[in-house]
Amino acid sequence: MPDNRRFLLQRRPDGEPVRDDFELVTEPTPDLAEGQFLIRNHYASLDPAMRGWMDAEGNYMPPIPLGDPVRASTIGVVEESRAEGFEKGQWVMGLHALEDYSLSQAGGFTQPIDPSLVPEVTNYLSIFGAVGMTAYFGFLEVCEPKEGDTVLVTGAAGAVGSLVGQLAKIHGCRAVGIAGGPEKCAKLTDKYGFDAAIDYKGKDEEALTKAIAEAAPNGVDMIFENVGGIILDAGLMNLNLGARVGLCGLISEYNTDPRGARNLWQLIVKRASIRGLLVSDYVERFGEGAAKMGEWAAAGKLVVEEQVDEGLENAYDSFMRLFAGTNQGKMILKIA
Amino acid sequence: MPDNRRFLLQRRPDGEPVRDDFELVTEPTPDLAEGQFLIRNHYASLDPAMRGWMDAEGNYMPPIPLGDPVRASTIGVVEESRAEGFEKGQWVMGLHALEDYSLSQAGGFTQPIDPSLVPEVTNYLSIFGAVGMTAYFGFLEVCEPKEGDTVLVTGAAGAVGSLVGQLAKIHGCRAVGIAGGPEKCAKLTDKYGFDAAIDYKGKDEEALTKAIAEAAPNGVDMIFENVGGIILDAGLMNLNLGARVGLCGLISEYNTDPRGARNLWQLIVKRASIRGLLVSDYVERFGEGAAKMGEWAAAGKLVVEEQVDEGLENAYDSFMRLFAGTNQGKMILKIA
Repeated sequence: MPDNRRFLLQRRPDGEPVRDDFELVTEPTPDLAEGQFLIRNHYASLDPAMRGWMDAEGNYMPPIPLGDPVRASTIGVVEESRAEGFEKGQWVMGLHALEDYSLSQAGGFTQPIDPSLVPEVTNYLSIFGAVGMTAYFGFLEVCEPKEGDTVLVTGAAGAVGSLVGQLAKIHGCRAVGIAGGPEKCAKLTDKYGFDAAIDYKGKDEEALTKAIAEAAPNGVDMIFENVGGIILDAGLMNLNLGARVGLCGLISEYNTDPRGARNLWQLIVKRASIRGLLVSDYVERFGEGAAKMGEWAAAGKLVVEEQVDEGLENAYDSFMRLFAGTNQGKMILKIA
Repeated sequence: MPDNRRFLLQRRPDGEPVRDDFELVTEPTPDLAEGQFLIRNHYASLDPAMRGWMDAEGNYMPPIPLGDPVRASTIGVVEESRAEGFEKGQWVMGLHALEDYSLSQAGGFTQPIDPSLVPEVTNYLSIFGAVGMTAYFGFLEVCEPKEGDTVLVTGAAGAVGSLVGQLAKIHGCRAVGIAGGPEKCAKLTDKYGFDAAIDYKGKDEEALTKAIAEAAPNGVDMIFENVGGIILDAGLMNLNLGARVGLCGLISEYNTDPRGARNLWQLIVKRASIRGLLVSDYVERFGEGAAKMGEWAAAGKLVVEEQVDEGLENAYDSFMRLFAGTNQGKMILKIA
């Protein structure tokens, strides 16, 4: 068996992760026990949530142990197997790690996938993966959209946000997106079909609040929140009565102490709510979500963008794009 | 007609209200137009929400115009009437102002009340008024309690909080209250029947988080939030999966720039929600709420405490007790 390159977490990041928090090492490929199988990882999903797994406290997942490879969703091919149902050559998807080869076992979360069912196998990490399911269930189940609603999406050029904006349009809503920079904003309206785009760069809370009011002249009925900070606070100032905020992420806070949401009083004024959402609550319904997303994609109603960077040796740089906002669409790392 | 003493808002408070933001003046009693009636105010309710009405932005109510008397719920007796259904001598309750006499009209929010139905007429400003209805509908409709749930109440010695704790016990929940100082904490457990009381004074966020964890060893299923700041943030760190936070008030932020809620990420981890509540949404069901509250009070299951200060000339001092936390129970000002 070939050697296994592994991208290890060597030190818990203090704020923004730095290169030396990680180390790319080469280790022997592990031996298999009965019931286990070895996956040759081809693609890994790079997600903001991984930042939280690097902290000592953990969040909805236990922290990544120091010295372990960085946990990530990957897709790959079974290279060797001592587990029933996972034959050599089978494509699989699951929560593995940034490494050439991952050990898994039957009865875990690793599932067989069929590349012939999708345009690109990487779609299993975007539209048919956690990202797509987060957009689907988060938007439909947590935000409860009604036709004619105005939907504000923050982090709108991101993997989840760009899908949510398109789902809003599919469901007859007005979609307003917030993103960083003129290129991303142009993409929101031109590529993803948002009705309006707001560039948050160079805007303070007051200017953002005003920009949202202009883009959403009838107020905001729901927010799909990925960012937090002044972007959330500006959104809260534009809520309609009974508005729903689906809280999917707070990327502005992952590498710094949170500024804090200062306009919660608007929830009282508007009898509005903020509800946290996590895609793992919907695992049993992923089939339903994937079928619908696939239908819309096939009908040309859903544009999916993936940025595939190459090489495990570039894992750090690619991961950090998520926080710099320099990725274009779903961030994926090609490992092999 | 006698003269009318009126407690006017002369300047919008900058942070904590100071005495000179107000002025007690004496004006002639107004003449009545057709359809109007004049109320001799006997008691006024002093509530934290009044602070928001003094700001230029307003909240769920328009701001009090400068030079107008401070808006307040009052109960009083019709002194003179040119309106059908409001005869001289009738007791009424409504949103009036801190003044001896208020002008009102039929078809507004002023309603006849019957003092013979309640132990004390002031109960219309506490258990049967906005305070009681906020506790009743906020707890039952917004927090959706289930038997065995652990309920965390902040501002627990306050007018609303003390009722919510008792409602929690009536509904088979474990009630944990947070209040300021050992006397108030003793009152929570001894008088209102809370299972545990936490004194927030001298505790930072970490100590508060720990104290809540100790008082709620099975975690917190719902928070009835009146305070905000580090008290809310400490509560968020103790939520159970699917917990509900009913946001009733944020008194820690009314006189200062908000610190901001910094632990919103816990809503994602726990798939929890924060929902703003305002009692005016339930006006049509006040009869139902008052009947239930009356039943429980008559059965000795609800202890109601009122602090009645005397004299319109003391309006400022009495109002400021709400923020100093030196009131004992529902703060009421006796005007006549």
